[in-house]
Amino acid sequence: MLRKISIRTPGQGLHEITDQVAAVVRQAAVREGLCTVFIQHTSASLTIQENADPSARHDLENWLNRLVPEGDRIYTHTFEGPDDMPSHIKAILTNCSLSIPVMDGELALGTWQGIYLWEHRRAPHSRSVLVHVAG
Amino acid sequence: MLRKISIRTPGQGLHEITDQVAAVVRQAAVREGLCTVFIQHTSASLTIQENADPSARHDLENWLNRLVPEGDRIYTHTFEGPDDMPSHIKAILTNCSLSIPVMDGELALGTWQGIYLWEHRRAPHSRSVLVHVAG
Amino acid sequence: MLRKISIRTPGQGLHEITDQVAAVVRQAAVREGLCTVFIQHTSASLTIQENADPSARHDLENWLNRLVPEGDRIYTHTFEGPDDMPSHIKAILTNCSLSIPVMDGELALGTWQGIYLWEHRRAPHSRSVLVHVAG
Repeated sequence: MLRKISIRTPGQGLHEITDQVAAVVRQAAVREGLCTVFIQHTSASLTIQENADPSARHDLENWLNRLVPEGDRIYTHTFEGPDDMPSHIKAILTNCSLSIPVMDGELALGTWQGIYLWEHRRAPHSRSVLVHVAG
Repeated sequence: MLRKISIRTPGQGLHEITDQVAAVVRQAAVREGLCTVFIQHTSASLTIQENADPSARHDLENWLNRLVPEGDRIYTHTFEGPDDMPSHIKAILTNCSLSIPVMDGELALGTWQGIYLWEHRRAPHSRSVLVHVAG
Repeated sequence: MLRKISIRTPGQGLHEITDQVAAVVRQAAVREGLCTVFIQHTSASLTIQENADPSARHDLENWLNRLVPEGDRIYTHTFEGPDDMPSHIKAILTNCSLSIPVMDGELALGTWQGIYLWEHRRAPHSRSVLVHVAG
C-alpha cells in the first residue's frame, strides 16, 4: 500500500508524524512487513528521535542550527533566501527516507522513538510524505 | 521474515554485527530480496563502514567525538548524563535503519563493507536490533 | 528485480544517477512498490538533492569539504592517501542506501529531487550500485 500524506509545518522545527504514519500502517492491515517513509523535498527531512523529553529535540535543533548557520560566506546559492542553503545541508545530514519494520500489525518503534518531519525552512510549508507498506 | 536480535555493547564504539545480520538472512532462505536493519534506540545507531583496517573506525569515532563533544553549553537535556545529548545528535547524523539487497542468498555487501552498531553511550547497553528480510 | 549498475565517476563530486535508477524501475514493470539503491563502497555515498540549480550542489560540496578537510591531525588512517579518511567520514554523514517508493510505474521523486552518487575520492573510480525493485 502506498499513501501520500500532506503535512503542514508551522516553520522550522521537529514535527512529530508518528500518528499519521501509524494510521497508514493500520490501514494496510499487514501483520509483519516493512514501512518506508519518504519525503519529496530537499529542504525538509525525516528523522527518528526521542519522543519523551522536548528538551532533547530543542537541543538537536540548536546544535544543528549552530553547525549549519545562515549567512555563511561559503554559500553562493542564496536567491531563495538565507535559510535555503542551510536547509539543503541539514537535509543531507539527516534522512530523506526511513524504513521501519511492522510487527504484529504495528510500527516496531522502540519505546522512546517517534518519527519526525524536520522542517528546515523558516516559513510554514505544506510537505508531501509518502508512506509505503509491504507485507 | 522478521527477527529481533539483542546486542550487548561494551560501551562507546563501533561494534560489528555483520555475522548476526547475515545469520538471519541465511535463515530466511531468500535468493534475491532486501534486508532491512533497524535499531530501536535513539542513543545508538547503525552504519556501514570499512571492515578491514581498525584505524579507520578509530578515526571515525574520534572525529565524531570532537564534532559532538560532551559538556557543550548548548545542551539543556542533561539529566540523563553528559553522554546522553551527544548520543542523540550522533544518532541523527548516522542511521537508524539500513537497507541492503540480498543476492544469491547472501547480503550483497561490498568487499570492504561491514555492518556496525554504533554505541554512543559510555556504559554497556543491551540494544534491540530488528532484521527484516523480504524475498 | 535486482540489478548492479557500474558508475564511472570523474573524481570528487555529486554525480546524478537518476536516469540509470529510473531505467531499472521501468524494466521491473512494477506499478506500485519500492526501489532501494545501495552503494557497495565506503568512500563514496548516495544522496537525494536538488536537481535544478548546480550552485546548491556546489555549496554542498564546499561545505562538506570544509567540515571534513584533508590533513586533519586527528587522522591515523592515512596510508591510502589524504582523501581516504575524509571520504569515510563523509560517507557516514550521508547515505549508503536510499529507499524511494514507486508510483504509477515511476520513481516517486519530488519535482526538484535527483538521486546522486557522491564520490568522495579525488581520483576517478568505478562504483558498483545495486538497484532493487519490489512490487
